[in-house]
Amino acid sequence: MITITGIAKGSGMIRPDMATMLAFIATDAHLESGVLQQCLAAAVEQSFNRITVDGDTSTNDACVLVATAASPSPVLQPGDTGYTAFCEAVTGICIELAQAIVRDGEGATRFVTIAVESGGSSEECLQVAYTIAHSPLVKTALFAADPNWGRILAAVGRAGLPDLDIEAVAIYLDEVCIVRDGARASDYTEAAGQQVMGRDELTIRVALGRGSGRATVWTCDLSYDYVRINAEYRT
Amino acid sequence: MITITGIAKGSGMIRPDMATMLAFIATDAHLESGVLQQCLAAAVEQSFNRITVDGDTSTNDACVLVATAASPSPVLQPGDTGYTAFCEAVTGICIELAQAIVRDGEGATRFVTIAVESGGSSEECLQVAYTIAHSPLVKTALFAADPNWGRILAAVGRAGLPDLDIEAVAIYLDEVCIVRDGARASDYTEAAGQQVMGRDELTIRVALGRGSGRATVWTCDLSYDYVRINAEYRT
Repeated sequence: MITITGIAKGSGMIRPDMATMLAFIATDAHLESGVLQQCLAAAVEQSFNRITVDGDTSTNDACVLVATAASPSPVLQPGDTGYTAFCEAVTGICIELAQAIVRDGEGATRFVTIAVESGGSSEECLQVAYTIAHSPLVKTALFAADPNWGRILAAVGRAGLPDLDIEAVAIYLDEVCIVRDGARASDYTEAAGQQVMGRDELTIRVALGRGSGRATVWTCDLSYDYVRINAEYRT
Repeated sequence: MITITGIAKGSGMIRPDMATMLAFIATDAHLESGVLQQCLAAAVEQSFNRITVDGDTSTNDACVLVATAASPSPVLQPGDTGYTAFCEAVTGICIELAQAIVRDGEGATRFVTIAVESGGSSEECLQVAYTIAHSPLVKTALFAADPNWGRILAAVGRAGLPDLDIEAVAIYLDEVCIVRDGARASDYTEAAGQQVMGRDELTIRVALGRGSGRATVWTCDLSYDYVRINAEYRT
């Protein structure tokens, strides 16, 4: 049996690119330090490096994984089933901590998953996901629970993808399709969109219709409290 | 005698990349249409394409320059002194209109010039200027009249310039040097910084210390009213 424990702090100035976010994970597993580093790097790439509160990277992010080797379990090595399970567990903890940082984001009232799929590559999916996640117009619409599909579609359009065929783009708010073939879905009703936007947690899913790349980013809304916290933090 | 008149509207969703900004300029000068287009393109590059309110490009920017040729003045051609003077006048009007759009930005309480100099190229200076102009932390500090030099320096650092020597960087708020040699200037006092930050108009000047490139961008702060306008626009 192996135990893994993690703690993290963040709140604003959060868009780790391994930048004031701090995360510590400890385990009693036994791994060589190089192997441990490789496991952590892969986990961080899919967790802490996929969250953003305000797009401002902080100046001293750190994520530390410590292994004491005190567990009686055997040494874990790449290729072993045990190692794969260990990496999945570490990644799972990192994702849980990373999401907790977003939920605790400065002024955040809503937790939003932005999932971009069928892109030409995972890099271009990330580019679209971050453009949506950083758009002040999308973030204020999320705060207002306003299903403003035009703001989301505009962010997709200005993300800088070469030769993007906007007519191939579809956008969903959870189970509700709001944009199909690059325009407002004909069966979409604002009541349905509003109902999703009022949820504490929701997913904006964008299908680019040009490949098999995919990427997911987690973010929050932009509220009065974000402005208050960052404008009045000394008063 | 030649007359040039211009009008423009903008307010949020403003970071023209020729994007809901509309500008119309009319003149009675006589120029060929190709020459007129060339003059306008150069003017727009230094004016409308150098402003940002929130980083969200709008979907239908337009800047139109119409010349009626009704003036009795001779046809203006590239190379003529008259043409140069005409282009300078058009550029001046475009800058005035572009700045007016920023002053009228959604929720804007302060007009900020971001001037980046001594960069390796004008492109990298622009990259630094836009990173500062789009930083929610810098924008909320501007709203609060808070001389938070760390937020500005952090934006310079994350702008993505290759091999940036942070120790060569200097930052000024109007006439007050806040960062010298990459760290808080030793003679800087917070009272001096606060005095500048309280002004309705101010310049953040960044010297990168690595070349002769320069670029200027105009922007505004991020206030409660930006959030209100974009979150509650339908109520």
